[in-house]
Amino acid sequence: MKTIKNVAKKIKPYIHETPILTSTLLNEIVGCNMFFKCENFQKIGAFKMRGATNAILNLSEEQKDKGVVTHSSGNFAQALSLAANNLGVTAYIVMPSSAPKVKIDAVKGYGGEVTICLPTLKDRETNAERISIENGATFIHPSNNLDVIKGQGTAAFELLEKYSNLDAIFTPVGGGGLVAGTILAVQQRLPNCKIYGGEPENADDAFRSLKSGRIETNKTADTIADGLKTQLGDINFPIIRNGIEEIVLVTEDQILSALKLIWSRLKIVIEPSSAVAFAALINKSSDLNSKNIGVILSGGNVNLDNITF
Amino acid sequence: MKTIKNVAKKIKPYIHETPILTSTLLNEIVGCNMFFKCENFQKIGAFKMRGATNAILNLSEEQKDKGVVTHSSGNFAQALSLAANNLGVTAYIVMPSSAPKVKIDAVKGYGGEVTICLPTLKDRETNAERISIENGATFIHPSNNLDVIKGQGTAAFELLEKYSNLDAIFTPVGGGGLVAGTILAVQQRLPNCKIYGGEPENADDAFRSLKSGRIETNKTADTIADGLKTQLGDINFPIIRNGIEEIVLVTEDQILSALKLIWSRLKIVIEPSSAVAFAALINKSSDLNSKNIGVILSGGNVNLDNITF
Repeated sequence: MKTIKNVAKKIKPYIHETPILTSTLLNEIVGCNMFFKCENFQKIGAFKMRGATNAILNLSEEQKDKGVVTHSSGNFAQALSLAANNLGVTAYIVMPSSAPKVKIDAVKGYGGEVTICLPTLKDRETNAERISIENGATFIHPSNNLDVIKGQGTAAFELLEKYSNLDAIFTPVGGGGLVAGTILAVQQRLPNCKIYGGEPENADDAFRSLKSGRIETNKTADTIADGLKTQLGDINFPIIRNGIEEIVLVTEDQILSALKLIWSRLKIVIEPSSAVAFAALINKSSDLNSKNIGVILSGGNVNLDNITF
Repeated sequence: MKTIKNVAKKIKPYIHETPILTSTLLNEIVGCNMFFKCENFQKIGAFKMRGATNAILNLSEEQKDKGVVTHSSGNFAQALSLAANNLGVTAYIVMPSSAPKVKIDAVKGYGGEVTICLPTLKDRETNAERISIENGATFIHPSNNLDVIKGQGTAAFELLEKYSNLDAIFTPVGGGGLVAGTILAVQQRLPNCKIYGGEPENADDAFRSLKSGRIETNKTADTIADGLKTQLGDINFPIIRNGIEEIVLVTEDQILSALKLIWSRLKIVIEPSSAVAFAALINKSSDLNSKNIGVILSGGNVNLDNITF
């Protein structure tokens, strides 16, 4: 199996090595020493650029010639479009008609060939499959694809390169790609470091999946953390099940409060999904007193009109 | 006269060398190449840490023993408290009873000795003068003090150290310390670079002062850019009058729109006063097509509850 170190080396020319921020004041508030990996400063504004780039780099030349296809209304649509563009590959992006125009325009701006479909998972999958057959394009799943997962793990790898003394790392849990990649990176480099996932109480499919031992779906998804409404997949679930310490649920109030702390104290804009990881850490802080903790701030693509403190 | 380069060297151990951010997308939107000097990441969250530190460093040992005093409800109160604390000097801070508790607590947290007064300029001045006489403390004005002004100029100095090809620099204009310091730094290092000030239409005292040739006061100060309600002083006004290219007025809508662009595109939190400089640049952008422009983002201390896009 290719190590995450090799993946990091391979994708390095196409991504930003994002900064790691610290704050004495936040450390005092939370009671541990925190290292925030700022993927909000990543290209397209989120960690997904890492996985998308790695997935395309691992295609054969013949596959690259025929292009890639995915369905996404969010960050992965932009990430795959830009990563494909950087590598001279065509990206076909299926987006639901409910996607904001600004996001559709962004994907087109990165060179993605957009197909608008009905806002249902079934219609998204049907369209992606049709395009895949028509063009011979390779389907790249946003989170349930081993090369995508390994790519996402390079954020934690960069964090461990700078801080090799971390006791734990927190990530948000949505489709499972970031947390699974983080687990792989940590297992290969610092196996005693524990991985915690943060998940909204209102979209707790991963929490329940760990309990039941099978992939559960969300019954509700009424959360401000709109990037975390997706469910785990058969490739990332076994990795997560094997490697995670705990999934910590957080309320909507806790997400908003964590978001406000990061914006006001670190002076950076992160999206609500990122605040879920920090909120989870705050919930567990009494167990982690004075420990060294990494937090993956996954992205910064937020509709400011929707945020009111 | 001591050069700003010497000042920069002197205060370096006590301040952050703040990052300079760029954005291809923002450059495309505005039509010039912009270099954002991010003083929102400065200690206490604003450039005022520079001037406060320099002012204290230039006191005699006898003066340092007796302490410093200022009146401020905002960033300078925190800056002088922390700068004094770093240098083992007592800081007496007069704050109006209208100041938010969180700011008063922050000043106390940095070791400042707080005196609460009535929320009038007269009572602030009376109290500061009384404390100065009682303790022999040196009064440090937040903006109308040459050592403070030179300290503020080090932000532009750092910018020019990295980018020596700037055609212009934009700063906000409030009390006049930042813009005057920027003028001094640029005159010494890159005299052909033009300095523009941004000012809210609703607090346009500096714009009118330049027209009339004497220091004008604000008739209204109904602006979201709460750091820019103060007026120029007899030390900084001649420097500004001599060195500024233009003061560009911006509306409240333009400030909010500029703020949103920075938050959403650069993924950083700046305060509305900082957005005034960027809004002014947007207003002048047709004259500055394809030029290299520095923008001093002065700070990031914003009450998030007050911002609605």
